[in-house]
Amino acid sequence: MMTTTATELTALLAGAPVGVVGLGLMGGSLSLDLRRQHIHVRGWVHRASTAERALARGLVDEAGTDPALLQGCGLVVLALPLDQLVSPSAELLAAIPAAAVSVDLGSVKEPVLAALGPSLPRFVPCHPMAGTALAGVEAGQPDLFKGRPWVITPGAAVDAGALATARALGTALGGELVQCDASDHDRAVALISHLPVLVAAALLQTASIAEPDSVSALAKALASSGFADTSRVGGGNPELGTLMAQYNREALMAALDTYERQLARLRGLVDQQQWPALQTQLRDCQQLRPQFL
Amino acid sequence: MMTTTATELTALLAGAPVGVVGLGLMGGSLSLDLRRQHIHVRGWVHRASTAERALARGLVDEAGTDPALLQGCGLVVLALPLDQLVSPSAELLAAIPAAAVSVDLGSVKEPVLAALGPSLPRFVPCHPMAGTALAGVEAGQPDLFKGRPWVITPGAAVDAGALATARALGTALGGELVQCDASDHDRAVALISHLPVLVAAALLQTASIAEPDSVSALAKALASSGFADTSRVGGGNPELGTLMAQYNREALMAALDTYERQLARLRGLVDQQQWPALQTQLRDCQQLRPQFL
Repeated sequence: MMTTTATELTALLAGAPVGVVGLGLMGGSLSLDLRRQHIHVRGWVHRASTAERALARGLVDEAGTDPALLQGCGLVVLALPLDQLVSPSAELLAAIPAAAVSVDLGSVKEPVLAALGPSLPRFVPCHPMAGTALAGVEAGQPDLFKGRPWVITPGAAVDAGALATARALGTALGGELVQCDASDHDRAVALISHLPVLVAAALLQTASIAEPDSVSALAKALASSGFADTSRVGGGNPELGTLMAQYNREALMAALDTYERQLARLRGLVDQQQWPALQTQLRDCQQLRPQFL
Repeated sequence: MMTTTATELTALLAGAPVGVVGLGLMGGSLSLDLRRQHIHVRGWVHRASTAERALARGLVDEAGTDPALLQGCGLVVLALPLDQLVSPSAELLAAIPAAAVSVDLGSVKEPVLAALGPSLPRFVPCHPMAGTALAGVEAGQPDLFKGRPWVITPGAAVDAGALATARALGTALGGELVQCDASDHDRAVALISHLPVLVAAALLQTASIAEPDSVSALAKALASSGFADTSRVGGGNPELGTLMAQYNREALMAALDTYERQLARLRGLVDQQQWPALQTQLRDCQQLRPQFL
């Protein structure tokens, strides 16, 4: 299986190296997996110390701070934070070879496609839905993308070869390909990923500011797995949470609208003591949840 | 350790058996653990078939549908659903020996204390914060309460012997004793247990009714561990969720008030694009969460 998929990407690359811009969790993990498949990987990073660590960890074959590293690459992977994808530097755009296929790995797709598509005709937006709590050059790990959705949201004008390369990359990393519209993707992740961050954050705040202090202290002492699970993503990386809200603001606001309406409905049932109706709603939820697992 | 704690409860019981009313997850698990400590356990249940299964599973030493089973018991454990605790049957109240210490295991304490305290002077409300997704006579399992909070919310007038017995029971089961005011308990569990059910239920509903259908289908396909965790308690037992809302309504409504206010604040930051302020809020949440673990 691994041999077949690696061959597909290898065939499309026709011996050209892969350039990876940024060697944090996503870029580092991707590089490790490609190298294991005997694909030559060059990492372009901001700091010389990062390049040294990346080489010492064996993440890449070559690494450095010189944009010339990308010359001759058949595929360039932009493993950068969302803000650097949505407002790409002139240096970055100039460094990507005109003939290269390029992909990003950002968690919001429409603004990235809008920002990079016009400058990079062979750009294919990708969103591998994988991660850990770690970040930085030490975070990369093998098989991060294995069995996880590899979402591709190509623009209408992209060529078939570029699309095939982005798909072959996902397959080579063991991802499960999902191809969809960028706008649909952004609205879906607003619901399943960005909205939950705010829902969980508000829960943490609510439990923390309870009065008197004895209640808040007791809440902390008694909280168990239910609260831990419901609040987990609210305690995640604040920079990432903010970037996702910033670059998916419209879809997130729509999701918040619907959420506030649904919660108000449930609250109304409690307020008006409509217990059979509340039980019906909770039974519906019990049946809904497996559809998301 | 087990020997010491068992001895404390055994000493207080002075050879009298323990009566357990209801042999579902809580009552069955408790009975199993007490029997392992050579305490004689009698189970009073509603149906003869339940008594048979309880005996076949070895949950109790004696079981049946006759309230006379409770005669001579030094401790009676009311392992019943909340509604049967808050509106106890005359038969139940009559069956509990006047000299016996009695405890319940319900997840809301103030209304249970108010309902049972006047009739049962030796009643001590308890809330072991443990559970599984299972219910019924097949659900009982050893060590369910081990390492979990065993909350005790005694009324002002209860005698020291009754309180000592309720504490010794928690210790014998390996629970971690927490003694507090019934009202504080109810407000704390509204925040960490009952509010999360509605928060998670509204999230499930929001992701399910998204339009167009392609977005909702994509949300289901792409949802991963973050959504699964945030939504988990919203997909739980609907009867239990409704009972908790019903019998802890005032505290839950107060928690919902605060929650809606906090969420509206976060939403306002997104709406007004106040990204540094949002990041500060999310950083605070990141630091808050470990206090609940």
